[in-house]
Amino acid sequence: MPEFLLLSRPTDALQTLLRALPDGMPAAEEIESSKALGRVLASDVHSLHPLPEFPRSTMDGYAVRARDTHGVSETLPGYLNLVGEVVMGEVPFFSITPGECALIHTGGMLPKGADAVIMLEYTQLVQNGEIPEKRNQPSLSIDLPVLFSQIEISRAVAEGENVIRIGEDVAAGQVVLSEGKRVRPVEIGGCMALGIVKLRVAIKPKVGIISSGDEIIYPNKSPRLGQVRDVNSYSLSALVENAGGKPILYGIVPDNLEIMKAAAAKALAECELLIITAGSSASARDMTAEAIASLGAPGVLVHGVNVRPGKPTILAVCQGKAVIGLPGNPVSALVIAGIFVVPVIEKLLGQKIHHPPPSVSAKMTINVPSQAGREDWVAVRLLHSNPPNISKEGGEYLAEPVFGKSNLIFSLAAADGLVCISPDATGISAGEIVEVVLME
Amino acid sequence: MPEFLLLSRPTDALQTLLRALPDGMPAAEEIESSKALGRVLASDVHSLHPLPEFPRSTMDGYAVRARDTHGVSETLPGYLNLVGEVVMGEVPFFSITPGECALIHTGGMLPKGADAVIMLEYTQLVQNGEIPEKRNQPSLSIDLPVLFSQIEISRAVAEGENVIRIGEDVAAGQVVLSEGKRVRPVEIGGCMALGIVKLRVAIKPKVGIISSGDEIIYPNKSPRLGQVRDVNSYSLSALVENAGGKPILYGIVPDNLEIMKAAAAKALAECELLIITAGSSASARDMTAEAIASLGAPGVLVHGVNVRPGKPTILAVCQGKAVIGLPGNPVSALVIAGIFVVPVIEKLLGQKIHHPPPSVSAKMTINVPSQAGREDWVAVRLLHSNPPNISKEGGEYLAEPVFGKSNLIFSLAAADGLVCISPDATGISAGEIVEVVLME
Repeated sequence: MPEFLLLSRPTDALQTLLRALPDGMPAAEEIESSKALGRVLASDVHSLHPLPEFPRSTMDGYAVRARDTHGVSETLPGYLNLVGEVVMGEVPFFSITPGECALIHTGGMLPKGADAVIMLEYTQLVQNGEIPEKRNQPSLSIDLPVLFSQIEISRAVAEGENVIRIGEDVAAGQVVLSEGKRVRPVEIGGCMALGIVKLRVAIKPKVGIISSGDEIIYPNKSPRLGQVRDVNSYSLSALVENAGGKPILYGIVPDNLEIMKAAAAKALAECELLIITAGSSASARDMTAEAIASLGAPGVLVHGVNVRPGKPTILAVCQGKAVIGLPGNPVSALVIAGIFVVPVIEKLLGQKIHHPPPSVSAKMTINVPSQAGREDWVAVRLLHSNPPNISKEGGEYLAEPVFGKSNLIFSLAAADGLVCISPDATGISAGEIVEVVLME
Repeated sequence: MPEFLLLSRPTDALQTLLRALPDGMPAAEEIESSKALGRVLASDVHSLHPLPEFPRSTMDGYAVRARDTHGVSETLPGYLNLVGEVVMGEVPFFSITPGECALIHTGGMLPKGADAVIMLEYTQLVQNGEIPEKRNQPSLSIDLPVLFSQIEISRAVAEGENVIRIGEDVAAGQVVLSEGKRVRPVEIGGCMALGIVKLRVAIKPKVGIISSGDEIIYPNKSPRLGQVRDVNSYSLSALVENAGGKPILYGIVPDNLEIMKAAAAKALAECELLIITAGSSASARDMTAEAIASLGAPGVLVHGVNVRPGKPTILAVCQGKAVIGLPGNPVSALVIAGIFVVPVIEKLLGQKIHHPPPSVSAKMTINVPSQAGREDWVAVRLLHSNPPNISKEGGEYLAEPVFGKSNLIFSLAAADGLVCISPDATGISAGEIVEVVLME
């Protein structure tokens, strides 16, 4: 039987793993909203009051009764008496009666009686007299001044024009942010607008990382010939951090079944997710699978995924927790972690809204063949000629495969992102527009 | 003169600001490589030794002399004497002479004399005798066993096949990571491979944030009618953090020129970049511009940008530091900060490689008109039917503009990203493929 029939497709493998994990709410903690960036909400957030709490002007202009402006035009202007100015941050003490208006600034509170704002641009002060502020000093009896200020208006406004009504952004009691949402700057801002200064967020899931292999030593040591330093513990730790998890390093374990079993059991007991990078050889990988199988039911669900790099991936659930066996090669480990570790962390966080991975469209520079049935992830460098932060259109960037053996860590470091060749395709042609998933 | 001729284009405005800022190296600090995620390198990183330091096998198989396999095929197999097994993490004590091979595992060190590895799949153990390990115990005199193990090989290999040569990933002394690069998980991994456990990174630039407006109160207070809580200090703080800066809040300042000047002068002295969100009214914004102008030469460079939302943006350089006046409206402030604040922080960090902002391609659901000459940023929600983390192609997602008045904070919170309508366009048609810049 051809090998690709024995290997799982990455998408199927991921679904198998996610479905085997228990559902349920993540443990939560309460933190200050201002420190919640990147965290995932553990409860719905409700507004305690409407937003805004008072009708606000969205323009600098005059608060008016819309009906007083009807029929008004540039050729047939209207005239309103100016009765006051709305002071920012205060309730106007006057109201607007027929034929009256008040100066108002963006964000100011609409006076009683007014139902629209006419922009300053469509008005003119035609008679500069006294402004009575008639009800602004309610205790005073008003002496009518000799001359009132008068405003000429050259445009009609509809009721509600240039006004944000009470509750137009948010109604009282409304769910403003849903459980499972990841907090961005805009959500922090929204919470502040409502006075929600604390938020319940998912506790970061603990992700245990074990590196294995007889040839692996700690990075601060000098390798003898034949030895190499541990890369995976640190690159995976950073990836886990980016995804919202809390990495816990369990160090390097030799290719010894009993030691591996013991280390894995300890880590699994202490963490919500366990990652083991297998020793490099086939026998070491089989040993990893055996150690994982010993951790509990249901055990190994997927052994081998039809993806390059990363075929010898192991996906398991033991005692209700995900255990992921990654290839020892650092490039494979990082690519595969992006495919399997990140979604598991999102599930553990209760993250309900899954966005596509950030990417850019680019035009492939050369033909890249791929084996049908296998999903290939090709590391590419982005070439672009445009200034930063400008919007782009498909094909404005070029995607150039990173040369050299793809499994070398510094080849991957030279790449900006990865292009996925679907199992259904036999490659990508030069000139084809592809989505480059950015490595972050 | 039409207004758009008086307003700067966003791209021009940004270039004006960046060019007016002094060049020069950011202040640097040395930190542990394992904690450098997201930081920007302040020096080039050199390898102290080649990587790998010894020739390594990339496969499980047999280390051979390539010339011994020439001419070999499935129909005309070759035979080699098995002389030992390479132990992971150790230097093989034997070497390979003509007609010999040694069992080797992925990542194992190639024995002397061998120059290629033939994959296990193309071999067969045909004579299971003793393995001499002839030079593995050099002190022992070797008794020739009765029967040697013999390996049948059915495929020829070229010199260097399935082998990573010394320095193939990185040569000794090579610049492996360049100054100005932002550290991702892969860079951390690469440093560890080389034993580089400390890195010089740019110190996070201090970014002062002042919120202004007579109507603004602190989020933990209860607003009276007419007052609103401060949103911008907190949403901008999170944005600055995301961009790699260190936000410092200077609180809320009333619409008073002298108080504003004093607060701005103090913040500018203590920070590398100052952001002031202006009070809402035109007069408050003019006051902000005046306060900024008082901070030093060259002062205000751009006052008004032809962008929506965010027209009343002020860009200035005072005493060699950028000062950015943002609109008071929280939605405008956040959108404009993405356009101007983020690139300034990147410049202050010495970030040399500017990637396009993460985005996804999507198909617009409705027509969105736009004024020619003005750059519009339209908040959109992404609709998609696919499972997460799967590569996508243009148009697989739908971009649906967020309804409601775009300047409401919870409308923006409902959006996944922003679509930029270029000043040259008069809108986007339904069905058009657009790039949605993700809000993070």
